[in-house]
Amino acid sequence: MVNRIFLIAVIAGIPLSVLGSLLHWPSLIMFAVYCLTIIALAGFMGRATESLAIVAGPRIGGLLNATFGNAVELIISIFALQAGLNGVVLASLTGSVIGNLLLVGGLSFLIGGLKYKRQEFNVYDARHNSGLLIFSIIVAFVIPEVFSMDMDEGKTLTFSVGISIILILLYLFALFFKLVTHRGVYKHKTDEAGEHEEPEWGAKKATLVLLLATIAVAYVSENLVHTFEEVGETLGWSELFIGIIIVAIVGNAAEHASAIVMAYKNKMNVAVEIAVGSTLQIAMFVAPLLVLLSLMFENNLTLVFTMPELISMVTAVFLTIILTNDGDTNWFEGATLLAAYFIMGIGFYLL
Amino acid sequence: MVNRIFLIAVIAGIPLSVLGSLLHWPSLIMFAVYCLTIIALAGFMGRATESLAIVAGPRIGGLLNATFGNAVELIISIFALQAGLNGVVLASLTGSVIGNLLLVGGLSFLIGGLKYKRQEFNVYDARHNSGLLIFSIIVAFVIPEVFSMDMDEGKTLTFSVGISIILILLYLFALFFKLVTHRGVYKHKTDEAGEHEEPEWGAKKATLVLLLATIAVAYVSENLVHTFEEVGETLGWSELFIGIIIVAIVGNAAEHASAIVMAYKNKMNVAVEIAVGSTLQIAMFVAPLLVLLSLMFENNLTLVFTMPELISMVTAVFLTIILTNDGDTNWFEGATLLAAYFIMGIGFYLL
Amino acid sequence: MVNRIFLIAVIAGIPLSVLGSLLHWPSLIMFAVYCLTIIALAGFMGRATESLAIVAGPRIGGLLNATFGNAVELIISIFALQAGLNGVVLASLTGSVIGNLLLVGGLSFLIGGLKYKRQEFNVYDARHNSGLLIFSIIVAFVIPEVFSMDMDEGKTLTFSVGISIILILLYLFALFFKLVTHRGVYKHKTDEAGEHEEPEWGAKKATLVLLLATIAVAYVSENLVHTFEEVGETLGWSELFIGIIIVAIVGNAAEHASAIVMAYKNKMNVAVEIAVGSTLQIAMFVAPLLVLLSLMFENNLTLVFTMPELISMVTAVFLTIILTNDGDTNWFEGATLLAAYFIMGIGFYLL
Repeated sequence: MVNRIFLIAVIAGIPLSVLGSLLHWPSLIMFAVYCLTIIALAGFMGRATESLAIVAGPRIGGLLNATFGNAVELIISIFALQAGLNGVVLASLTGSVIGNLLLVGGLSFLIGGLKYKRQEFNVYDARHNSGLLIFSIIVAFVIPEVFSMDMDEGKTLTFSVGISIILILLYLFALFFKLVTHRGVYKHKTDEAGEHEEPEWGAKKATLVLLLATIAVAYVSENLVHTFEEVGETLGWSELFIGIIIVAIVGNAAEHASAIVMAYKNKMNVAVEIAVGSTLQIAMFVAPLLVLLSLMFENNLTLVFTMPELISMVTAVFLTIILTNDGDTNWFEGATLLAAYFIMGIGFYLL
Repeated sequence: MVNRIFLIAVIAGIPLSVLGSLLHWPSLIMFAVYCLTIIALAGFMGRATESLAIVAGPRIGGLLNATFGNAVELIISIFALQAGLNGVVLASLTGSVIGNLLLVGGLSFLIGGLKYKRQEFNVYDARHNSGLLIFSIIVAFVIPEVFSMDMDEGKTLTFSVGISIILILLYLFALFFKLVTHRGVYKHKTDEAGEHEEPEWGAKKATLVLLLATIAVAYVSENLVHTFEEVGETLGWSELFIGIIIVAIVGNAAEHASAIVMAYKNKMNVAVEIAVGSTLQIAMFVAPLLVLLSLMFENNLTLVFTMPELISMVTAVFLTIILTNDGDTNWFEGATLLAAYFIMGIGFYLL
Repeated sequence: MVNRIFLIAVIAGIPLSVLGSLLHWPSLIMFAVYCLTIIALAGFMGRATESLAIVAGPRIGGLLNATFGNAVELIISIFALQAGLNGVVLASLTGSVIGNLLLVGGLSFLIGGLKYKRQEFNVYDARHNSGLLIFSIIVAFVIPEVFSMDMDEGKTLTFSVGISIILILLYLFALFFKLVTHRGVYKHKTDEAGEHEEPEWGAKKATLVLLLATIAVAYVSENLVHTFEEVGETLGWSELFIGIIIVAIVGNAAEHASAIVMAYKNKMNVAVEIAVGSTLQIAMFVAPLLVLLSLMFENNLTLVFTMPELISMVTAVFLTIILTNDGDTNWFEGATLLAAYFIMGIGFYLL
């Protein structure tokens, strides 16, 4: 039923997106077309990654989800960086962090929790991820903010580049740890659950769907970005609000879709891996990669967020850690994460 | 023995309070009379809530304690709000948060710990409460502080009202979670302990005592507030210090009494529920309710504390969470909480 | 093999240190001589404390390590205090905190983790220490920083003295708790491991070696300090960087050596006790003792760090707690701590 609606939305949405952008249809209409198309495409991506996740196991599956979700954001950010819109880049990084932790995580816990009284996931993975969240957000993002107050621009950039190299190195070490030296060392009773399920699509078909949907999402997303200015003026939204809230919701639609599907199927390991793993990929890979790539452009990017952005990320990390560190979720924990997201959303709307 | 002294103090204290306030006796004498009367009344409230707690079970019992302790503070704050004393209202909210977490919690752990080597309580409740402490203090109080630096007064008020509505909604969801959807889901071996005890008073007598003592405490507390200015001048205390330290100690005397009694009886579930539950009621119900009620007055209340107030609450939350998250207390953890309270107390005295 | 090299380094290093300082050899050469001598002496201290640790049990052994490591720092700081170099004292305290937590802890976890897939230690001790880290760094160091912004110098000093007395009292209570009232109450399966090992030296010989090596380390360290200014000028290092990074690395060489030896022998209880226990001794004993001692000098010391110093300590505490609170380490957790240390090191180098 939902799958059929999504198929129709994709079959109708992609040609409409191409046509509308060529014929310069009104921004507000195209904004709606783009959003719906992306959400429908995200549905396909969710099904494809779910099939691959069943084939490849929950951990690699979660990694796949996070990678394909953030490819879109990386592409958008590179275009924004090239245009010198550093503020929008930092805002969309912030939006991805709080969106993944609070909105994706919150919806997963809430919707999964409406079906199941208590959902468990691998507590070792949760603690491993908590350490990386503290490292990337609390250490690697807060330190340059505070130190840069006593530094000139050149030193701030040098510091950002140094931190970026360390972040990417530790991200690679984390993959090596998870996939090579400690693969299967930290097991949990829920890790077996659902692995006997049959995948909807085979590995080849799933990969093809995932690939095509990713390309289509990237194309539509880029068009979507160009409607933001006019939509912002029409609806009275600031660029900061669009960057942090709208880009995050639409740009992470793929994660939303698949995390919620996984939570609804009680595969909380994958759902949490998507929400937190995607955040870590943004903070430890996308953000530092953008800093390093910016060295090729005129406007260099430093890891110095605005205070509201930084405090939002920091408080989102503390809330996520305290709620996930027991390896157990319920609907109320989802509601708490969503309430925190609404508070930040109202704040950025009013700024 | 103690009960008899408390009975005498109440029988002597209430007429003396009425007489003294009518005849305008010296403030310092009345200050002592009011304080002793409230502490004695708190003793009765402790025994009454204890009786009700035995009848109703530890969780509802804890809730009852928190409600009757904070009714006094809500009434005092409404009077202060009406008089436009927003600074005193925020100070007394701060004082209630750090007083309940550090002073009530610290005394309970210390005195309970002098009798028992190791006291356990429901670790699921502790983690549930930790999530709400992070949500209410770290997210809902820190965010408006930081965002308001870039907002005008009107937007700060709008933001405070939005946060207040979200706080009250989540507080109601939390009650629904605890009492309806997840009642008894998170059990713990200590939950049965002491439930076979006989209540001192029946439900009717306990309710009557609780009601009368609450009314008397409210009457005496209000008189007490009017002595603060003169006492402050006489003893060299600032209004901030009186609001944060003195109002909290006397205003939370009921919680002190019953939490310590519970800890001494090794019913740590109730003791922790009083200390932390009362804090959460202040942060998630009393504070946002005061913001919403202030819309009816000339002086509107925003959720923007002073930095010393905010940092005191934030650090108190982190200390409480790290000490309670293992579901286990001892005398030294109580001493640590009290040491933190003394540091903040000295700080507010010197400010 | 290593022991023989260390023996030669000590036999050659001590006369060279005395000769070089009397004959005023070039600073850069003496800097290298002093450093190598201290590291070699630290090797002997490590073996001596290890022998004593086997005789006395892991907990007292860890305490011995921490005490003999910090005696050097206390002596250096008193000389610096007498010379009015308050900034260097606070910097070296900061350096000891982040050096012990991130560098000593990180190297122990990394090197131990290269040999063992997963190393366990007493989770009760880790949680006890976490509470004290939050108390000393997050409460006792952050509170005076924030409050002092609204205080004059006199009140800031009074506040620092008050906090110092509370810190030392709680430190004494902590010892009383660990060694008297709760000795052996919180046991763990790893606590027995390795206690059947034979000590290298007897208690008398180990004590003598420890005593002589400590005196020699103190002598050489003091000479080392006097080379810092010239070395800083020659190599382009700021005094802050030397205070925070170089003093910490060389001054804590004893802890480094013994913590890593313990981690390599899979005695993680001792390794963690050295890293975290030494931090707590700095924060709860050395720092407040220096504040109280400074009352006898002209320049009084207050507990007001610079913002980069404070934020480095605070984020180091959060990272350490999240990584140690599960009582389990691996090489990647060590790499994470070291990555945080490198980020702060680069930051202080650029400041």
